[in-house]
Amino acid sequence: MSKVFVDVGISLDGFIAGPNGGANNPLGDEGIKIHSWMFKQKSFLSHLKLEGGETNNIDNDIIENTFNRIGANIMGKNMFIEGEANWPEESPFHCPVYVLTHQKRKPWERKGDTTFYFTDEDIHTVLKKAKTDAGNKDVRISGGVDVIQQYLNAGLVDEINLHISSIILGKGVRLFKDIDKDNFSLEIQEVINSQEVTHIFYKINKLEHL
Amino acid sequence: MSKVFVDVGISLDGFIAGPNGGANNPLGDEGIKIHSWMFKQKSFLSHLKLEGGETNNIDNDIIENTFNRIGANIMGKNMFIEGEANWPEESPFHCPVYVLTHQKRKPWERKGDTTFYFTDEDIHTVLKKAKTDAGNKDVRISGGVDVIQQYLNAGLVDEINLHISSIILGKGVRLFKDIDKDNFSLEIQEVINSQEVTHIFYKINKLEHL
Repeated sequence: MSKVFVDVGISLDGFIAGPNGGANNPLGDEGIKIHSWMFKQKSFLSHLKLEGGETNNIDNDIIENTFNRIGANIMGKNMFIEGEANWPEESPFHCPVYVLTHQKRKPWERKGDTTFYFTDEDIHTVLKKAKTDAGNKDVRISGGVDVIQQYLNAGLVDEINLHISSIILGKGVRLFKDIDKDNFSLEIQEVINSQEVTHIFYKINKLEHL
Repeated sequence: MSKVFVDVGISLDGFIAGPNGGANNPLGDEGIKIHSWMFKQKSFLSHLKLEGGETNNIDNDIIENTFNRIGANIMGKNMFIEGEANWPEESPFHCPVYVLTHQKRKPWERKGDTTFYFTDEDIHTVLKKAKTDAGNKDVRISGGVDVIQQYLNAGLVDEINLHISSIILGKGVRLFKDIDKDNFSLEIQEVINSQEVTHIFYKINKLEHL
């Protein structure tokens, strides 16, 4: 059965991006440090049509497995704006991407089977469409943090995978700022560590009062 | 050689205690949830002279190993006030404890070889005394968060051990709020996971510009 999952890199102090992010400052000030373990893996770079990168390590495998399970993405407007200015012509998704925005815009098809759909429908409806598109694959709630929070708070996420880097960022965009924490509990499924990052895979259990 | 270390349980969103902590509300609102994995281990309960608890699991071993390595503690006034009202007559330290406070008070000896020393000397001087007391054992910077931050920011800590519980607390006392993050880097030494908590042991490397 198709899963809905969140998969994000965070700093040890809980930020998924630095402050002042935008089209000209993707990931915000110093935000790239959070993801430095990822940016040097071949599995990540190849999706951005960049050469090189490391292979034969667990970080590379984790990224590859994550890409392979995704059948559709849902993201917020700010994440899209940041990406639109920085992704290569062949966007790194290779499947449908739903962008939650009030802006009216026709679907935007990119090389490599990525199509962006712009929608202001409610998050349940959008998820239903994404699940249909994904088929046997999974739906990733890509970000940013507002969209992740909306889906978590609505009880619509099955798994959250955190990649905790050994970095203290000090300020930025906090992942767990506005979570309805009493709606669910987290259950550790797997922990994988490597040199620079600790990967923790959580299953999300809805609490019984819901 | 004797080490200086921090060893704290934190929630997944980075809190070491809930809000509104004090003598009548140790660990703050809901703060006990962060440490629920610890409060059910025999190695922890026995230090508080309480019966029962689980054995034969990695969490229990980690707590026991931590207690055994400590030759002296340094803590802040608020942590002491909270503990003074709640520790058993035989305080759970069994070694010298330096309390950083401007309050003048004679050393307070407790059953079981714990002596509390109250001092307003600078943190370097206090650490020197604690190291002498600890001998071949290690010095724990026990908390609260202000004292941990002071010692981290001064570059005086060798290791930080985080026990990351699978709990989102929402609000409380944040561990990494006022860290001079550019003074040091963190290097993963070991990661141990169990059912409810992920233990990450970091070595602290001072950065070269210091």
